[in-house]
Amino acid sequence: MEPITLADVRTAATRIAPHVWRTPLVACEPLSAALRCDLRFKAESLQHGGAFKARGACNAVFALSDDEALRGVVTHSSGNHAAALARAATRRGIPVYVVMPHNASPIKLAAVRAYGVEPILCEPTSEARERAALEAQERYGARLVHPYDDPLVMAGQGTLALEVIDDWPEIDTVVVPVSGGGLLAGVLTAIKAIRPEVQVIAAEPAWADDTARSLASGKNEVPTRYDTLADGLRAAVGKLTLPVLTRWLDDLILVEEETIRAATRTISAEARLVAEYSGAVPLAAVMTTPERFAGRRVGLVVSGGNLDMGGCRLGESPRSA
Amino acid sequence: MEPITLADVRTAATRIAPHVWRTPLVACEPLSAALRCDLRFKAESLQHGGAFKARGACNAVFALSDDEALRGVVTHSSGNHAAALARAATRRGIPVYVVMPHNASPIKLAAVRAYGVEPILCEPTSEARERAALEAQERYGARLVHPYDDPLVMAGQGTLALEVIDDWPEIDTVVVPVSGGGLLAGVLTAIKAIRPEVQVIAAEPAWADDTARSLASGKNEVPTRYDTLADGLRAAVGKLTLPVLTRWLDDLILVEEETIRAATRTISAEARLVAEYSGAVPLAAVMTTPERFAGRRVGLVVSGGNLDMGGCRLGESPRSA
Repeated sequence: MEPITLADVRTAATRIAPHVWRTPLVACEPLSAALRCDLRFKAESLQHGGAFKARGACNAVFALSDDEALRGVVTHSSGNHAAALARAATRRGIPVYVVMPHNASPIKLAAVRAYGVEPILCEPTSEARERAALEAQERYGARLVHPYDDPLVMAGQGTLALEVIDDWPEIDTVVVPVSGGGLLAGVLTAIKAIRPEVQVIAAEPAWADDTARSLASGKNEVPTRYDTLADGLRAAVGKLTLPVLTRWLDDLILVEEETIRAATRTISAEARLVAEYSGAVPLAAVMTTPERFAGRRVGLVVSGGNLDMGGCRLGESPRSA
Repeated sequence: MEPITLADVRTAATRIAPHVWRTPLVACEPLSAALRCDLRFKAESLQHGGAFKARGACNAVFALSDDEALRGVVTHSSGNHAAALARAATRRGIPVYVVMPHNASPIKLAAVRAYGVEPILCEPTSEARERAALEAQERYGARLVHPYDDPLVMAGQGTLALEVIDDWPEIDTVVVPVSGGGLLAGVLTAIKAIRPEVQVIAAEPAWADDTARSLASGKNEVPTRYDTLADGLRAAVGKLTLPVLTRWLDDLILVEEETIRAATRTISAEARLVAEYSGAVPLAAVMTTPERFAGRRVGLVVSGGNLDMGGCRLGESPRSA
């Protein structure tokens, strides 16, 4: 029994259409020539909030009955999902409780506040986060919107696959970053129902290889470290998502940190897109095994563009000509 | 007598459609909220070659008769136009002669070579460039494709305005960077013919204010310095373009260097687009006089994304969380 079907993804697409952007598929001729395949970037970095997370969050929020909606939604993500849920709830005009560790990055906190929502700060432990989220559920009756192990969220994320195959019918390969697996499960559900011959390949940091190990062992493995540059890919693969991956996934490619860094630079220089490290992981997979992709028509999901530029802010240190 | 008409722009749009990309208009909700207007970026940074120049170059190249085309095209631009012409000529399979100073930036040289064209290097003076270009014209019968003072180039650049008003019928203001004025003249020709009530505003660096002075004096003034960060905007306004600007332009806003730098950073952080300094000048104009734009629906042309990141390469120096 699959957690979601193509029909769920199609329903999500209709539901969220007024609230998310149909992002472009960006071609890059010189990079395609260099890597000997036709590469196009699905630029979810340009999505509202700078990540695909707007899709799943809007689907979960706008699927609520008016009665459920009155009691609001809650999550305890510290990443792009938090800001996406804040935005979706604000658009519907309902309460939203976003639990974040008090040491979350100022950029992530600011992203939630940009939608007029004040995060509920807690200690930076899983227990503290879950306790604070449970409190909002019990006190207000708010619905928990999990960042990936939620059928409505998975279906929402899968809507980007409908756009990709509509924009590029000749596509034969899609590469998707994997963390909790919500995006990947949604994409697999849509593509394997409509175009089963299109290969769907997961890209995962070698330093966050729990999905690779889970697929090998057949059960949910947990990460052994949490320090990959790709901070959006540090979560463990989900209970609901793993069976979908196990059934449909064609391949998984592990990538090294240096390749993620190089791919991030390449996307900005060659495709002029700001990708966060997690969003550059699919290109890193192509750079890792170019022979695997030679001659193919490859769609790469740039999952987000919220790059903490740190000391290296674009436009700040021009080289004098 | 206008150098081009709306019909020329429409003809160009049909001619170049197979060769250029219909770039997206990217919304940015938090930035719009902060600046109290509805801002959308026409992302020509995502165009093939990373700049709107692909449009004019393709229009000029594909308008040639087969007989003319055989003899090739020549230009002596050292900027985005050079690479755009190399790409257009390569697509048509005709000779192209690109004269560049031997001290041109390695990035600009590489952009031309990426399309399989070896630049003709010359001394870095205007005389040397023009002499080398004239030699190609005389020896091969190649047609000179000027970067802006050419009706086919102007009409090609104007095609982006057709896309903007088609994608966003409610738009009431367009802000365009000005250098030679080819893009601005093309945009004015299209918009003032179709939607004369839409305001078209030029944005120009205060350190390259020859267009502002030319509009004031009524004749072609020349730049007094060539050191604005916005290296794409250092050329003098053209002989053919100035009359179009004089007739139709609604306003011109001069911007300071620090504002250009801040706008470049803001576009990357808030809209996740890599803009070159020249491409950030329209946002700099809004940041300079926000009251001028309050409550309006403003399309900003991000003219290009070929930012020389110098010592500051995206993805290279992440701040340790």
